[in-house]
Amino acid sequence: MREAVTGGQIRVKEIWIAKGKSSFRAGEIRRLAREHNIPVLTQKTMTLSRLLPDITHQGIVALVEPFSYTELTSLTDHHPKNKALLILLDHITDEGNLGAIIRTALFFGAQGLILPKDRSAGITARVLKRSSGACFHLPIARVVNLGRTLDELKKRGFWVIGASGGSRESIYDFDWKRHIALVLGNEQKGLSPSIQKRCDQVVAIPASGPAESLNVAVAGGVILSEILRQRQAGKRVRLERTHSD
Amino acid sequence: MREAVTGGQIRVKEIWIAKGKSSFRAGEIRRLAREHNIPVLTQKTMTLSRLLPDITHQGIVALVEPFSYTELTSLTDHHPKNKALLILLDHITDEGNLGAIIRTALFFGAQGLILPKDRSAGITARVLKRSSGACFHLPIARVVNLGRTLDELKKRGFWVIGASGGSRESIYDFDWKRHIALVLGNEQKGLSPSIQKRCDQVVAIPASGPAESLNVAVAGGVILSEILRQRQAGKRVRLERTHSD
Repeated sequence: MREAVTGGQIRVKEIWIAKGKSSFRAGEIRRLAREHNIPVLTQKTMTLSRLLPDITHQGIVALVEPFSYTELTSLTDHHPKNKALLILLDHITDEGNLGAIIRTALFFGAQGLILPKDRSAGITARVLKRSSGACFHLPIARVVNLGRTLDELKKRGFWVIGASGGSRESIYDFDWKRHIALVLGNEQKGLSPSIQKRCDQVVAIPASGPAESLNVAVAGGVILSEILRQRQAGKRVRLERTHSD
Repeated sequence: MREAVTGGQIRVKEIWIAKGKSSFRAGEIRRLAREHNIPVLTQKTMTLSRLLPDITHQGIVALVEPFSYTELTSLTDHHPKNKALLILLDHITDEGNLGAIIRTALFFGAQGLILPKDRSAGITARVLKRSSGACFHLPIARVVNLGRTLDELKKRGFWVIGASGGSRESIYDFDWKRHIALVLGNEQKGLSPSIQKRCDQVVAIPASGPAESLNVAVAGGVILSEILRQRQAGKRVRLERTHSD
């Protein structure tokens, strides 16, 4: 919520706070809202629950403008010296997964995320929540044709790398110190054939147990962490905080 | 579902298949059920939806015995030569996170998972589903007092390693080639003080972007992958399949 007020990418039109809510958090939201000239309305808790039956709101709700996606062109340009990192999702349908991937992408320093317009989860209230506010900081673009976007990225010097089972190339053997467009596939079907054939390389995560696969957000985190490890080898790094979902 | 019939850890008492369901999957389930002497009943789709209003069942349902947790003692013994890997959850409350962690733990070859009995998600139908059947293969124990369990594990030669923000020790600098009991903290509060003070080491994942933290299942995946990478350095490994949620 704090992210929604101060983050900038989504514009907050109004904030509703449940009657009687007087937590530290509520006080801070009121203060931030005043600073940003956002009207705050007091509502009955019952009214909030009736209007938002499917959302756990903890007594504070922000009314926001529809999510504004980024223009693709602002993501495809990169500085030749700094190694770029874009993530493309080949029809991820679960909103929890999309939210977790956005949070993970921001954590590991990706420059942006590209989604297809059709047959893909988009940015909804649930995705916002599951991303822990990361939606407000990570540029996200939508495209009509993911394959054509990959062709365009290749022309601009990106290596298109898919994550998929069956690959014999380990993420640990691949050299990530180049401009990367990482493609993660659908939860059930993986990468579609038209995407897979465009990949310069398909990589897999080494396993040990009998489980066949990882959740796509977990797989994305493992790969992004390895990309950062290779790129930062020898450099000083900032350490994470694991304790918030 | 296939896992439920053949996996063994949960006993399937009966299988219900929606009337008219004749997919390849349904046929295979019928065949497996016959092999294992499990009765199969045909039910109206409406009946299934009425009895299971909160579950996406795709027309096939298994009635199972309550989940049987493993005895703690069967997890704490280890062969001195093979490096053990146990995961302890310090009050993870989200069922989706618990399911994803179980799936990830199995994928990376952990020997088992230990949960506290109180204030923690337990094994439910939703967790089973989110673990993609991994619940049937990974031994899971429940304990009354997580702190005392950590003391016991230390006596038995385990290193107790916590994952938490604020640590200055990177997961990449730590030597994982020893018996490890990895503790992941609650989604909001992280590791509790009584757990943190028992850790031989607390480690963190190097970040790059402005996001403060990762989802706990994603963080667990990143750490487990690094443990496996260090332990398998130089060995031949099996590669994963990312395309199933």
